[in-house]
Amino acid sequence: MTESDEPMDHFWAVIPAGGAGTRLWPLSRRASPKFLHDLTGSGRSLLQDTVTRLAPLAGERVVVVTGVRHAEAVRGQLPDLPTDQLLVEPSPRDSMPAIGLAAAVLEARDPDAVIGSFAADHVIGDAEAFHDCVRDAVAAAQSGALVTLGITPTYPATGFGYIKVGQPWPGSRRARRAERFVEKPDRDAAESYLASGDYRWNAGMFVVRATTLLDLLATWHPGLAESLRQLAAEPALIEQTWPSLTRIAIDHAVAEPAADAGRVAVVPADFPWDDVGDFASLMSLLEVAPDGLRVLGSREDVVSRDSTGLVAAHSGRTVVTLGLDDVVVVDTPDAVLVTTRERVQDVKGIVQLLQESGREDLT
Amino acid sequence: MTESDEPMDHFWAVIPAGGAGTRLWPLSRRASPKFLHDLTGSGRSLLQDTVTRLAPLAGERVVVVTGVRHAEAVRGQLPDLPTDQLLVEPSPRDSMPAIGLAAAVLEARDPDAVIGSFAADHVIGDAEAFHDCVRDAVAAAQSGALVTLGITPTYPATGFGYIKVGQPWPGSRRARRAERFVEKPDRDAAESYLASGDYRWNAGMFVVRATTLLDLLATWHPGLAESLRQLAAEPALIEQTWPSLTRIAIDHAVAEPAADAGRVAVVPADFPWDDVGDFASLMSLLEVAPDGLRVLGSREDVVSRDSTGLVAAHSGRTVVTLGLDDVVVVDTPDAVLVTTRERVQDVKGIVQLLQESGREDLT
Repeated sequence: MTESDEPMDHFWAVIPAGGAGTRLWPLSRRASPKFLHDLTGSGRSLLQDTVTRLAPLAGERVVVVTGVRHAEAVRGQLPDLPTDQLLVEPSPRDSMPAIGLAAAVLEARDPDAVIGSFAADHVIGDAEAFHDCVRDAVAAAQSGALVTLGITPTYPATGFGYIKVGQPWPGSRRARRAERFVEKPDRDAAESYLASGDYRWNAGMFVVRATTLLDLLATWHPGLAESLRQLAAEPALIEQTWPSLTRIAIDHAVAEPAADAGRVAVVPADFPWDDVGDFASLMSLLEVAPDGLRVLGSREDVVSRDSTGLVAAHSGRTVVTLGLDDVVVVDTPDAVLVTTRERVQDVKGIVQLLQESGREDLT
Repeated sequence: MTESDEPMDHFWAVIPAGGAGTRLWPLSRRASPKFLHDLTGSGRSLLQDTVTRLAPLAGERVVVVTGVRHAEAVRGQLPDLPTDQLLVEPSPRDSMPAIGLAAAVLEARDPDAVIGSFAADHVIGDAEAFHDCVRDAVAAAQSGALVTLGITPTYPATGFGYIKVGQPWPGSRRARRAERFVEKPDRDAAESYLASGDYRWNAGMFVVRATTLLDLLATWHPGLAESLRQLAAEPALIEQTWPSLTRIAIDHAVAEPAADAGRVAVVPADFPWDDVGDFASLMSLLEVAPDGLRVLGSREDVVSRDSTGLVAAHSGRTVVTLGLDDVVVVDTPDAVLVTTRERVQDVKGIVQLLQESGREDLT
């Protein structure tokens, strides 16, 4: 064992807590997105689980970046988070401004800060394996790399981007060069990626020195890098400056061009990972009860006979399923969704339909 | 046209309002059985529809017999019903004591009374055809027959009893002799009944002079007949007497032996009739919307895509169905049922399961 069990000096966990989770409607809503929910039956929200998972690496050095409409809920779920470690975006500007702001604030606070950015709404099955990967990533990041964790693909997913893995990264135990990032592929491409063994899922996990990230950003988006560093120096400017920032994802802004420039390392990650993107994904995280059903929420509220699938019981009412295979029933106080595992991708379209028909209040 | 549009002198409509409607759970509950519900989208309950349907025949001469736990709800739904035309059973004793009590009370009030007994929770598609049949039945009943309406079977039902029809009834326009009553048949027998053309469904509709009914009852159950006539003379005795009455259905107590004795006539009835026994039956009564779904309750609360079947929206919440054929979703304030048209018969088992597992409150 080369790694320690202690938090790493100068390592800061950055948790972007955003994203609507539209395909998890009606559990996930704009006003209450999926990171605020317990979707695994752990008794804690995905956000709380994420913070807990990072504590052995970062100790108290956790920064959460969230939107203004969720700040209060985040404070409620993380009462021990110091005020200056919750960064509130006045409006959504995608991931680069969010993570970049955290980087700028931490760079000002600790010039040697290494940040590890991990979404608030992902599920990781093996925390120790995750810690091990992050420690390797931090080591590689110390020497100036932008490091990403590359998840071993388990099926030819078309819903994730991929990272093409190259030669070993000099001086690292197991990091390799990230040759390039590729966008969500079609089915054929996904199958060839899986077959080749050279590709890994891009889970949006980045480990990098704060200064490295901002310097890389300055190469391709100098105005954005400058604005973020200015905001770190004068936080009061945020309301004024924020709306003018470029709306861009960290992948496009930095990771892709940096990979082309040979600056990105990838640590192969074998731990189970899930972005809980839809109800099928959520089902895979839940245990099957003896009666064949997976239940989220109050088990005592669910009665089933000859049924398989998922029941999310979140209204306090009794939910009965009878004679349905692969059914998905999501019961909440103001809406109930009934669909099948096969159609969970189309839940997004239902949310659009509700919005178009004047029922935004439900979304 | 031989029949009048006026109510018939001495004709009294008797409406037994009982039965749990277990297979319509969670719409129908012990505390609020199906006759109290609007199950057709008419805006009125089945009970109210039954009273309205009978008014052209009986005018104000309507007697409702119900259990003590539903008396208040019946009064609420029928505010114009005179107090002495609501008979309240202290406990359920099946249909003979219920209808027999009404007969005894009416016999005392009008020795020439002819009663027509029609359940509170059936749906009839053509009120004029129904009226026509009842007028013929009343004419046959005047001469001392026990007259039943025999519904033309439309499929080989195994859920109803049948009546074998014989020779024309002397002096009647279209009544025939009821040769015998047969219990719910198995599938093969039902198919042979349907093929023969000699059998009709027993819908439990009886038209008979009150005195005839009680005299027939006295032939086979003299004690019961005597008790009922005594109760009509001294209503205050009901709490004391009622629990000792034989618990028996009118079919067994009177109709079957009377048919054997050649005393029962049957008026063939071609109007659409449904006992709304389960959700499949209920579905057949509702119009299909352009999107393929049948909706009971608040249409504006239902959103569906690529779905057929039934949604009963009775909780004020939004119900969404996506990609399900022949689904049945019944949403109420404290319970939601999700099943398929194929399994609606098994809803009864769910109610048993709830009762056995200490959730009687939901039944």
